[in-house]
Amino acid sequence: MQYELTYELIQNLKGAIQSADYSFVKNLVDNLHAADISDIIHRLEPEDAIVILNIISIEDGADVLMHLDDDYRKRFLKEFKTEQLAEYLNLIDSDDAVDIINELPVKRRDEVLLKISNHKKTAYILDLLHYEEDCAGGLMAKELVKVKLTWTVNECIEEIRRQSKYVEKIYSVYVVDDYDRLVGIVHLKKLLLSDGNILVAEIYDEDIIRVETYRDAEEVARIMQKYDLESIPVVNVQGKLAGRITIDDVIDVITEMAELERQMMAGISESTEEDSSIWVLSKSRLPWLLVGMTGGMLGAWFMGFFEGNIKLIPAMAFFIPLITATGGNVGIQSSSIVVQSLANRESLDSFNASKLIKGFFVALVNGLAISSIVFLFNMFVGRDIKLGLVVSVALLCVVVIASFFGTITPLILNKIKINPALASGPFITTINDLLGLAIYFIVASILLNF
Amino acid sequence: MQYELTYELIQNLKGAIQSADYSFVKNLVDNLHAADISDIIHRLEPEDAIVILNIISIEDGADVLMHLDDDYRKRFLKEFKTEQLAEYLNLIDSDDAVDIINELPVKRRDEVLLKISNHKKTAYILDLLHYEEDCAGGLMAKELVKVKLTWTVNECIEEIRRQSKYVEKIYSVYVVDDYDRLVGIVHLKKLLLSDGNILVAEIYDEDIIRVETYRDAEEVARIMQKYDLESIPVVNVQGKLAGRITIDDVIDVITEMAELERQMMAGISESTEEDSSIWVLSKSRLPWLLVGMTGGMLGAWFMGFFEGNIKLIPAMAFFIPLITATGGNVGIQSSSIVVQSLANRESLDSFNASKLIKGFFVALVNGLAISSIVFLFNMFVGRDIKLGLVVSVALLCVVVIASFFGTITPLILNKIKINPALASGPFITTINDLLGLAIYFIVASILLNF
Repeated sequence: MQYELTYELIQNLKGAIQSADYSFVKNLVDNLHAADISDIIHRLEPEDAIVILNIISIEDGADVLMHLDDDYRKRFLKEFKTEQLAEYLNLIDSDDAVDIINELPVKRRDEVLLKISNHKKTAYILDLLHYEEDCAGGLMAKELVKVKLTWTVNECIEEIRRQSKYVEKIYSVYVVDDYDRLVGIVHLKKLLLSDGNILVAEIYDEDIIRVETYRDAEEVARIMQKYDLESIPVVNVQGKLAGRITIDDVIDVITEMAELERQMMAGISESTEEDSSIWVLSKSRLPWLLVGMTGGMLGAWFMGFFEGNIKLIPAMAFFIPLITATGGNVGIQSSSIVVQSLANRESLDSFNASKLIKGFFVALVNGLAISSIVFLFNMFVGRDIKLGLVVSVALLCVVVIASFFGTITPLILNKIKINPALASGPFITTINDLLGLAIYFIVASILLNF
Repeated sequence: MQYELTYELIQNLKGAIQSADYSFVKNLVDNLHAADISDIIHRLEPEDAIVILNIISIEDGADVLMHLDDDYRKRFLKEFKTEQLAEYLNLIDSDDAVDIINELPVKRRDEVLLKISNHKKTAYILDLLHYEEDCAGGLMAKELVKVKLTWTVNECIEEIRRQSKYVEKIYSVYVVDDYDRLVGIVHLKKLLLSDGNILVAEIYDEDIIRVETYRDAEEVARIMQKYDLESIPVVNVQGKLAGRITIDDVIDVITEMAELERQMMAGISESTEEDSSIWVLSKSRLPWLLVGMTGGMLGAWFMGFFEGNIKLIPAMAFFIPLITATGGNVGIQSSSIVVQSLANRESLDSFNASKLIKGFFVALVNGLAISSIVFLFNMFVGRDIKLGLVVSVALLCVVVIASFFGTITPLILNKIKINPALASGPFITTINDLLGLAIYFIVASILLNF
């Protein structure tokens, strides 16, 4: 049931497919969950994967298709005939069907849509195509069960029976008025425990948490997480019931947000797949490397003004990596704390002067600790006391200033509507490298010429 | 209903509490969801928060308590009398009740447990106290509905009715044999649509995805996400039904994992709260700063051997930040790609020689791009051609080697059971700084003495 995907299994499967031993393949995949078959398919070339999809039933195939990664699926869809794809889409929830339609070349989209036998499904898909991917409208499915206030519990159950073929997971039914406006909700548990002749009006819950179609996907995730919901109804601007979002889609949003942020922190500019080409992979990494490079070249230019000092005291150069690394580390620490607070929506009233002052003292404590250790060490190994002073004073200033910039940069980015997570990556490191150098050489020229 | 928490609202509330205007407070919170009241309470001092909890009903209070952050709640619990706390725990699901018990001083735990009026709840809590927090046993609640194969649908509905006071969210009922071993599941939708006299044996689903109590919380999250589950049954080693985990708890696990990883990448060693003391905040940041500092000092020691070279060509020092920054950036990029793959469980058969070779070529492309630009620029501003060559050759080597170390470090950490995310933070930067310096000065002493 929860089986382990092993290298041997994949090799055996590839062998069986190549030698057309389809009974082996069928035996192997027949008892697997669609999500597991999708896992297997990800390790196969599209030609081999098609063989598996043709062996299993069209219903299972639709489930498998739904579980595939977008990038893999995209390469894979061209292997299908238009009719076969339409048959699959017919069985897939409208939200996932739209994702698949969007992965097709424009011309093919219409061809496939025309072949879908259930016209309600086609209408659903056409409606959903209007919405941006990263808003509530882009996440919702049209499949849901709606009932009226005047219905009895038995009528609701009949409606669920009618829809149950199309709506796989039902947690609750949505109550609408004559204009299709959402007025309430009845959980399945309540339906189950109520007498069949009771009216919806007597048992429904008016206190519904809903989202509008235009809401950000991130916001939907935050709301569902906050109120512990397994599904949420989506309404349009007029309050009409437009669809519902289930928690599995929202978990994917949460996971993607975390991945995007990790990439930002790591200085990778766009989502790439393991199997992207060398060229695509290089391109996704180069931009931030160029930012770092520009910073490095600016640093080189700046140090040019202090060539005389370095010639006089070459040991000055020894501490450049210490200064830049410490500035970078402090900056990243401070900025990521702020980014985290912003992600948790603590921005409202929490970034006031007292927080900044506290941050200043934290930096001061750490700066004093590090610069004292470095000073003692430098004295211990017998370096010049003046140079030791320069290094430690500069280090203290760098820690305090890097902490300050690390704190305010994400706040400013957030204010001007740029994702603040950008500030926890190479961006802040580059700025801090330059700041660190400037502080170091300015402190040096003041203290050494004294 | 989904209201905005404003600064004014909090101020008004504080004012009303101080002037004992409880009808204002009651009016304000009466129509709010428990999650929203928790949000408000987070902005108040414990003494003021207690006022709100005493105004609302004990049921609402239990809900509010459940929604509070652990750290805030911990400070807050001492304000309650033992009896009051026991009353709350009586109403809270066993998984959350255990979390609260664990936040109490050891002596008080027993006092509170003794006062809980529902002895079943006490037994549940005592059972759950055995499990580690970060495994399936530590996530599960004991509240669930279990039925037998020989029961009719009507008997199941009666059982749900009996339990419905204790089990808030019911998605399905679990089928057990005479030895309490989990043998199947019946979804609520199926119960609703089946005739009341039909036996569970005829409609239950044997194909259940379950987890054992000892499974890692992360693994539970991965399984529920993969199979799109809103709840999962937990069994003990004998296959007996021990509890169930609902998706809201798993979302919290996913969110915490992402936060932990962010902190690791940022070089913050333990979870700290906004309102922690300056001392605690400093302590959480200092360790990685010390690692960076040690790296910087080692770098300084290493450069000591090249003092003569720097004295001769001070311009060599100008490019130290460029070299170290580029090495750091490349290392972080490579390591975070690997960390991401490991998080997605692609480790099994995906890190083979061909991946490493591909990584090498990606690094080569980027390295060539950057070192060419730097070389052209250095020639353009009229720097010495030999120095220009040294810088660009070193840069190319640094990019390729940093990429290699960035790739293998998380793999090695993962192998020796250390969280590989550790390698996407200051750890890899420090190593790459040193590597970069070594390469730069070695290339320089080879090329310049030539």
